Amino acid sequence: MTKSRDTEIISVGTELLLGRVVNTDARDISEMLSKIGINVKYHTVVGDNPQRLRDCVMIAKQRADIIITTGGLGPTCDDLTKQILAEAFGLKLEYNQEVADGLYEYIDFKGELTDNTYQQAMLPEGCTVFHNTCGTAPGCGFEKDGKTVVMIPGPPKECNAMFSLSAMPYLQHLSEEKIVSHSVCVFGMGESAVDDVFAEEMNAMTNPSMAPYAKESDCLLQITAKAHSLDEAEAMIAPVMEHVCQKLGDMVYGIDVDCIEEAAMALLKEKHMTFATAESCTGGEIAKRFTDLPGASAFFKGGAVTYWNEVKSLMLGVPAELIEEKGVVSYEVAKAMAEGIREKLGTDMAIGVTGLAGPDGDGINEVGTVFIALATEDETFVREIHLGARRTRSFIRRMAGNYAFDMMRRYMSGKPVLF
Amino acid sequence: MTKSRDTEIISVGTELLLGRVVNTDARDISEMLSKIGINVKYHTVVGDNPQRLRDCVMIAKQRADIIITTGGLGPTCDDLTKQILAEAFGLKLEYNQEVADGLYEYIDFKGELTDNTYQQAMLPEGCTVFHNTCGTAPGCGFEKDGKTVVMIPGPPKECNAMFSLSAMPYLQHLSEEKIVSHSVCVFGMGESAVDDVFAEEMNAMTNPSMAPYAKESDCLLQITAKAHSLDEAEAMIAPVMEHVCQKLGDMVYGIDVDCIEEAAMALLKEKHMTFATAESCTGGEIAKRFTDLPGASAFFKGGAVTYWNEVKSLMLGVPAELIEEKGVVSYEVAKAMAEGIREKLGTDMAIGVTGLAGPDGDGINEVGTVFIALATEDETFVREIHLGARRTRSFIRRMAGNYAFDMMRRYMSGKPVLF
Repeated sequence: MTKSRDTEIISVGTELLLGRVVNTDARDISEMLSKIGINVKYHTVVGDNPQRLRDCVMIAKQRADIIITTGGLGPTCDDLTKQILAEAFGLKLEYNQEVADGLYEYIDFKGELTDNTYQQAMLPEGCTVFHNTCGTAPGCGFEKDGKTVVMIPGPPKECNAMFSLSAMPYLQHLSEEKIVSHSVCVFGMGESAVDDVFAEEMNAMTNPSMAPYAKESDCLLQITAKAHSLDEAEAMIAPVMEHVCQKLGDMVYGIDVDCIEEAAMALLKEKHMTFATAESCTGGEIAKRFTDLPGASAFFKGGAVTYWNEVKSLMLGVPAELIEEKGVVSYEVAKAMAEGIREKLGTDMAIGVTGLAGPDGDGINEVGTVFIALATEDETFVREIHLGARRTRSFIRRMAGNYAFDMMRRYMSGKPVLF
Repeated sequence: MTKSRDTEIISVGTELLLGRVVNTDARDISEMLSKIGINVKYHTVVGDNPQRLRDCVMIAKQRADIIITTGGLGPTCDDLTKQILAEAFGLKLEYNQEVADGLYEYIDFKGELTDNTYQQAMLPEGCTVFHNTCGTAPGCGFEKDGKTVVMIPGPPKECNAMFSLSAMPYLQHLSEEKIVSHSVCVFGMGESAVDDVFAEEMNAMTNPSMAPYAKESDCLLQITAKAHSLDEAEAMIAPVMEHVCQKLGDMVYGIDVDCIEEAAMALLKEKHMTFATAESCTGGEIAKRFTDLPGASAFFKGGAVTYWNEVKSLMLGVPAELIEEKGVVSYEVAKAMAEGIREKLGTDMAIGVTGLAGPDGDGINEVGTVFIALATEDETFVREIHLGARRTRSFIRRMAGNYAFDMMRRYMSGKPVLF
């Protein structure tokens, strides 16, 4: 018999109710749980108020088997959540020496010792302690009265790290079926276009199932199978993945990768190649995104952010007359930027981007017009995109970056660079 | 007597419980309501399931005076929310000809007529209809049994537009007091340090009230007053703001600004100054952050992202021997980078950043060690920071950027650049 595992996530924090922050914790936890077949049935948000939190916990005890709390741990909120949850399940809080020692170490290092920090070492009797890899307040889990309780700190980084590293293994045994999901990452087709391609099949499939999801500026197709073992689930997914990848062809930039720059990095590694960037409208975003990835320094030599026209000439050697003649937002200037930085830094490839991210126009091009060049040993490719004036500045910049990384990964994998 | 107006927001949508989307609707609505003094006490998320939604509405009827729902309107979800809410308050759904006519018009325009679209014209008897300016499903509001109910579609754009344009005026009469908040933005002191400075006063204050909030890598102190008019509330806040700013001194980088780069931009505008960047470990993030701001091009000429050592020499003229002798993560190299780019691009100021963002170390410096230089006409200032190896790569990079913008704003406003 499958254990019941209806879950409620209770997020504690007045700042959530004031709309100062958005409840990403509940989203992130729900996403992780859905992958191991644990069904989240409710999210609740309540302020830093003992009585209201107590009431919410009572409701959750009635309608859920697993109660997960986020927030209300740590010294600034007097460890509200721990006290209320322990009380609701008739447990005492006990001093945990190991946790206290860990706090000492962290506090010495940060130099911020507060009187009530030691409250953090008080934990429900018999609980499993979850170590906080990004902060001080520990989390914990316990089982009582047929319910499972998990408490996680509120700051999103701490929540995310602790939930995936400690709470997921703790909860995993509650699920008897194994779920495997893989994401086919797509750039160059929107979610609805992908949906159109597979609509009929998707309707006919239940296990494995297939669903497209829009991301900020690309999309993915998630294929999920449930089975008694992970191997069995993988075996069910494999032929579907093959079919999907074949049908989408070179629009697929990766499997289970977080972002297109990660796909580009994998190819740079495989091909032992380096690159450089020359950015105008993206203002350093492409370099920033790539260097967000640990290990970027092996492949990315550097780049120029040439916001002013004179700087394009100064740093990249783009002739002032070319800018004058063709306009700064042009095929030719993008090409000259990419070629200029490639030559200067001696890389295998280089990106050049010039465009209009808005909100103000230049009186010539529509906002959302961007030229993206990829200079290589043999050839320079230039792509012109028109994202439309109704798009935001940040979307236009992000999308231009996606095109740049897409051109790189297409070139390195021998696919047509311009499609 | 002030009318009671405890509010619960119920968001309906299985996609929220699967973690596919984050509940920005509840955040946005909470933020708008907090500005008119309506207190949100609970957020609840429930799936597209009639019985569970019914149960949630029953709980909300007991603990809230105002119930706001988002989602579960429109043809794809069979107008679940409208049906359950009408039933919970003993109201019938009535066909609304005006809404039906409006749908026709919109559908013609979008070319998407579905069989069950007409369900959308069925609304609770006697309700106030909220027009949907960005989609088809209308929203509505009604009062019954001493409760106020507002229903809004789920897609964030539709929700936001309808809530601010229609629901806010509808709810405004429920609030008799006006609320004004201002944020004093602080860099260089953590939330807990700010808390320590004002702890006693904060405990003694109720209206105006004062509360510190941590942001990703800086913090703010929010001062809020409630009064019968906005002017009165502003007048109550003014002396508190003055006191706070005086006490925090040059740690205050702005009032009601979103980020420290925005404060830097305001000063660049005031002083008619330009700047440039030379980034190593931040990899373009500082340029990217500044150029996220519309209008950045008036002040930011450009910059170099010099990830490889040879590129520091090539693009910035940093002598290879200096790097060899002092190490690339050093006071001297940061200084040479800032001075090099300033001279090259001819700007009033320039930033140079070199450090170790991790996760890998260099065998010499601890991860989290960063040198940030500000080159000016008269002098070059260099700040050395140690953020600690337990910090994430993205935190270290972000924090280094904050220090850079902080040094700029300190220099331009005549404050000590190094504190």
